[in-house]
Amino acid sequence: MSFSDHMSLPNHFELLATDGAARTGRLTTPHGVVRTPAFMPVGTAGAMKGMHWRDLRAAGTDIALGNTYHLMLRPTAERIASLGGLQKFTGWNGPMLTDSGGFQVMSLADLRKVDEKAVTFRSHIDGTKVELSPERSIEVQLLLGSDIAMQMDECVRLPAEQADIERAMQLSLRWGERSKRAFERAPAGYMLFGIVQGGDVPALRHASARGTVDTGFHGYAIGGLAVGEPQAVMLAMIEEVAAHLPTDRPRYLMGVGTPDDLLQSVRRGIDMFDCVMPTRNGRHGVAFTRYGQVNLRNARHADDPRPLDESSEWPATRETSRAYLHHLVKSGEALGAMLLSEINIAYYQRLMADIRDAVSNGAFDDFYQKTRTDWERGDIPPR
Amino acid sequence: MSFSDHMSLPNHFELLATDGAARTGRLTTPHGVVRTPAFMPVGTAGAMKGMHWRDLRAAGTDIALGNTYHLMLRPTAERIASLGGLQKFTGWNGPMLTDSGGFQVMSLADLRKVDEKAVTFRSHIDGTKVELSPERSIEVQLLLGSDIAMQMDECVRLPAEQADIERAMQLSLRWGERSKRAFERAPAGYMLFGIVQGGDVPALRHASARGTVDTGFHGYAIGGLAVGEPQAVMLAMIEEVAAHLPTDRPRYLMGVGTPDDLLQSVRRGIDMFDCVMPTRNGRHGVAFTRYGQVNLRNARHADDPRPLDESSEWPATRETSRAYLHHLVKSGEALGAMLLSEINIAYYQRLMADIRDAVSNGAFDDFYQKTRTDWERGDIPPR
Repeated sequence: MSFSDHMSLPNHFELLATDGAARTGRLTTPHGVVRTPAFMPVGTAGAMKGMHWRDLRAAGTDIALGNTYHLMLRPTAERIASLGGLQKFTGWNGPMLTDSGGFQVMSLADLRKVDEKAVTFRSHIDGTKVELSPERSIEVQLLLGSDIAMQMDECVRLPAEQADIERAMQLSLRWGERSKRAFERAPAGYMLFGIVQGGDVPALRHASARGTVDTGFHGYAIGGLAVGEPQAVMLAMIEEVAAHLPTDRPRYLMGVGTPDDLLQSVRRGIDMFDCVMPTRNGRHGVAFTRYGQVNLRNARHADDPRPLDESSEWPATRETSRAYLHHLVKSGEALGAMLLSEINIAYYQRLMADIRDAVSNGAFDDFYQKTRTDWERGDIPPR
Repeated sequence: MSFSDHMSLPNHFELLATDGAARTGRLTTPHGVVRTPAFMPVGTAGAMKGMHWRDLRAAGTDIALGNTYHLMLRPTAERIASLGGLQKFTGWNGPMLTDSGGFQVMSLADLRKVDEKAVTFRSHIDGTKVELSPERSIEVQLLLGSDIAMQMDECVRLPAEQADIERAMQLSLRWGERSKRAFERAPAGYMLFGIVQGGDVPALRHASARGTVDTGFHGYAIGGLAVGEPQAVMLAMIEEVAAHLPTDRPRYLMGVGTPDDLLQSVRRGIDMFDCVMPTRNGRHGVAFTRYGQVNLRNARHADDPRPLDESSEWPATRETSRAYLHHLVKSGEALGAMLLSEINIAYYQRLMADIRDAVSNGAFDDFYQKTRTDWERGDIPPR
């Protein structure tokens, strides 16, 4: 592993403590400090679905994610730049990470075509033909004013042929180099993360990690996981990659995951996560709690005056009755999605805060065991 | 006008000041005090659309309205009673008024039939055949634990034949008497309001007001307005009715209205209002402000970093840019509806608070003129 290139970039990450492979630290961005391990809620088009930014902050969120693909199409990166950047535009005013846009071109856009130079596609909003190259992706992310920009990469859904995984991995390495060159004009303090690909093939993961670190970035992401493979495969790939990443830079596992995914990944050295799961599951009536998932659609809750978790420090979790949540979900009331989204985000952020404390105190193993025991215990019995 | 009957019911309303016909007072309910004039946001099925109860309270709301028709069908009044009443069920824990359910049977249910005894209909949720009589409506409202129950009445859309208006008005008087008898078993402190009908016919309004006051209620509502008639007709009918209502009881104008409707009606002696307009218009991208209505869909806002009203004391009104609101509305993001709903409710409640202050200070006429001048000035010019 070469440290020569990434060492040439300023380091804004401070590792505060480790416990086994688990880490806790501070990442200083132009818009504020991020405590790690950090969970980043996803504000796709510049907004969280069903949550005010003020409540996101109150729930313990340090950093949010915006989607470049959506924002470049509407309201456009140029407009957001003229309005002072994404943080000011949304009123969030805190740290933001943006993805490169590449992943969502693949899942949302029509008539997409990938070649060495760029991805071309038609906008899902108005059908306009758009070209997204690594250089344009960085330009867009700089216009958005992202505290952390991501290199453009190609992500392959699993299972996939090894030849396809390797081709996409090699392309991602070349796009990473082009992304880094394009990022040279970024203002001081802003960061660019490289992305390790390689699917579920250890040798390709090793090669991708080495190549990405050789290019050198402010931080390193692991992409192409949580795309259809079993959790055990994901965790094995994290271990394969983490061994090749510099210890002094932040590590971000993209698009993950369940609370258990987060806990298991922290245990293998991951510092940052993003996922739509807490808000998406909330919109579908599912709560995450200390004692596992609770489906509020279930008729057992209809007459239950008890809250989801009377020991939670989050008011909506501690005070709202299951009967009311059940009623809201069954009635399709927006307030049900709003309450469950904030309950879930608050649970995720509580989990991350507890993890940080446990690592700081050298008690991560105990916390890991206790947390899994609580999840396995499951929800309180019906009354 | 006879005071004999209504005088026999305890009075929970205290008139604090008058200025011309405008009034300000305090209505004490089992779940708290309501400052009048009061605007009641509508939480149809036990939830405000797009607003947390905590934000409703922060915006200056003293009392909210629930719809008996929706709640009796789902989750049912019996279930809400077993969970401690609507205030506790929703977590609002403040004063609540419920309508009788009759109006929404007419607008939402299938196969409805009105006779002397009751309204029968099929539920719009599951097709079940349901009978709603004045006695059952009161029973349901007592199960819900409403601080203020409404008598069952029949409301005729305007324009209508005088014979139809009179028939519905006479039926409403008889249903009012039956509602009052059914309410005799209500616990102390809970209130029942009668409803004056009579369409746009002054003689029928007089007869209805006299008959309703003869029956005697804790307060008096004016129904059957804002159902298609011009504002001038509505205001004329308020004047016809108000002259026949006892001055020591609260007066509630049902289903009204725009900020100007509220201001004009207070000027004619109204104390309470309810309307879906602030939240419904918010969901459609329209904001109410000190300088009139603003349609955030309009492209003029797309690049405008200015807030809706920089002098507002409500944070979302003072801090959120028009450009961001425009983007949210155009993108169909739930946060747009959420922000505009609370911005509008906060504006309505600010207006009511300012009205109360103006009446207390004997300055209502000045406030009335200044407010209308501001509305007429209109929104700030585009940049």
